Amino acid sequence: MPTIECVPNISEGRRLDVISGLAETLRAVPGLRVLDVQSDATHNRSVFTLAGTAAGLTAGIPKLFEGAIAAIDLRTHKGEHPRLGAVDVVPFIPIDGVTMPECVALARTIAAGVATRFGLPVYLYEDASSDPARKNLEDIRRGEFEGLAAKMAQPAWAPDFGPAAPHASAGASVIGARMPLIAYNINLATNRLDVAKKIAAAIRMSSGGLRFVKAMGIPLEDRGIVQVSMNLTNYEKTPMYRVFDLVKREAERYGVQVLESEIVGLVPSAALTQTAEYFLRLDGFSSGQILEKKLAE
Amino acid sequence: MPTIECVPNISEGRRLDVISGLAETLRAVPGLRVLDVQSDATHNRSVFTLAGTAAGLTAGIPKLFEGAIAAIDLRTHKGEHPRLGAVDVVPFIPIDGVTMPECVALARTIAAGVATRFGLPVYLYEDASSDPARKNLEDIRRGEFEGLAAKMAQPAWAPDFGPAAPHASAGASVIGARMPLIAYNINLATNRLDVAKKIAAAIRMSSGGLRFVKAMGIPLEDRGIVQVSMNLTNYEKTPMYRVFDLVKREAERYGVQVLESEIVGLVPSAALTQTAEYFLRLDGFSSGQILEKKLAE
Repeated sequence: MPTIECVPNISEGRRLDVISGLAETLRAVPGLRVLDVQSDATHNRSVFTLAGTAAGLTAGIPKLFEGAIAAIDLRTHKGEHPRLGAVDVVPFIPIDGVTMPECVALARTIAAGVATRFGLPVYLYEDASSDPARKNLEDIRRGEFEGLAAKMAQPAWAPDFGPAAPHASAGASVIGARMPLIAYNINLATNRLDVAKKIAAAIRMSSGGLRFVKAMGIPLEDRGIVQVSMNLTNYEKTPMYRVFDLVKREAERYGVQVLESEIVGLVPSAALTQTAEYFLRLDGFSSGQILEKKLAE
Repeated sequence: MPTIECVPNISEGRRLDVISGLAETLRAVPGLRVLDVQSDATHNRSVFTLAGTAAGLTAGIPKLFEGAIAAIDLRTHKGEHPRLGAVDVVPFIPIDGVTMPECVALARTIAAGVATRFGLPVYLYEDASSDPARKNLEDIRRGEFEGLAAKMAQPAWAPDFGPAAPHASAGASVIGARMPLIAYNINLATNRLDVAKKIAAAIRMSSGGLRFVKAMGIPLEDRGIVQVSMNLTNYEKTPMYRVFDLVKREAERYGVQVLESEIVGLVPSAALTQTAEYFLRLDGFSSGQILEKKLAE
């Protein structure tokens, strides 16, 4: 069965009854599973990790909007995390048996539906974006809920769907499709923070590096070493092995060794498989050869 | 749900009605799936690839014995592949959510059951073996059906279960548990067969190499290159990356490059994951971090 991951972020991280009510609503939808709910009181924000079919998500996500819009009022919302709306951001992520264009189509259908039903402005982002200038979440969200009315008054910030002004209490939502993120860190056998920062600058897209790498150099003070801390935003086009090799080479320039690397949280199986393929120089390998995949058919 | 693979080899590869009848019998068993059936007329042998739970296999495998013993008579059987019995060999292979000791226990239970029910001598092999001298299938099968009565007359070849003499028409069976095999080949950028043979000798267990490697050097004549052709019989203890690195180093000694490698057939996901872990120097990685595994829970 095709599987799509969906990770809605809502602007409520304190009222646990509201959050568990929304989770219950989602759990009752056939074809949809709630894998995880993380709430942060300081951010005043919750992140739901869902997995489902296109049909399950088409049925469930509007129910999440309905519940969140009824319960959350951005006019009185305080929290450290930037946000634009009650349902702040909803990415759809292709996992198995589903393509990115299918996730983009799903994002657009659901965006059009909730915009009409709730009178809510919706911006499309990442792979679902219709405008290269409105691809990044950070750009769309800049100014936050408090600056939204002024922002929307500019023609460049007319929403993709829904009214041309904010929803009074729910602001606006950002809906889109993206590849799975990999949180990937490489630890260096040195305490020289300048080396980690220089390597981060060399490999990240924003300063001339690899297209789908975000990186920064940070100290791991308890261990007396430094880390190149990264988000890989498209492992198909910027694979982990290339990132690892490039960091290793850049580190050599400073006489520094790579100590180890780590994956924080989840990683798609294909990202590991492509790494094995690369290092073993595997010829003609297909994911259909993976025993567990064959057994699951 | 725990998954065990089972790959029975039966001594019939020509009468397709017999083979498809056995496959039908297995397909009707709940908790058991028939993934593949390969028949070879020259070998006069068929290989069933099954996946199931312990309960499904406990119910299904005796039915396979019943059908095969009724249909196959080793006294008139001819074929190029060595064989000892009508149901020649039955390995149980731990795949997911099941341990090797559990597969060993399953092999022993089923072996005892079919030995009693059909009056059939059964030898245990590989991880299920009770005697280090009777671990390898080749040793147990040496002499074949035609030499079985003489072999069983020796005290060292008393069976693990069943009568002390062959079944008149069905001979004996070999039942056990083993790790999944990986058929792994490494191609060298040379036409020097002696180099492939020397590398094969260096890395295989039988001549002093790695414990779970079987290897030979062969020419790929149409391509004008040579290959180190291998079976990896326990990828957990002798991992693919170590085999690859060792072949690469040995090749360097002869001034030869590794061109590519290939996996023939299926490979357990964990064998690829451990390879990625090694080359990326991944610290603290757990298979629970694989997205698809999390989603399948």
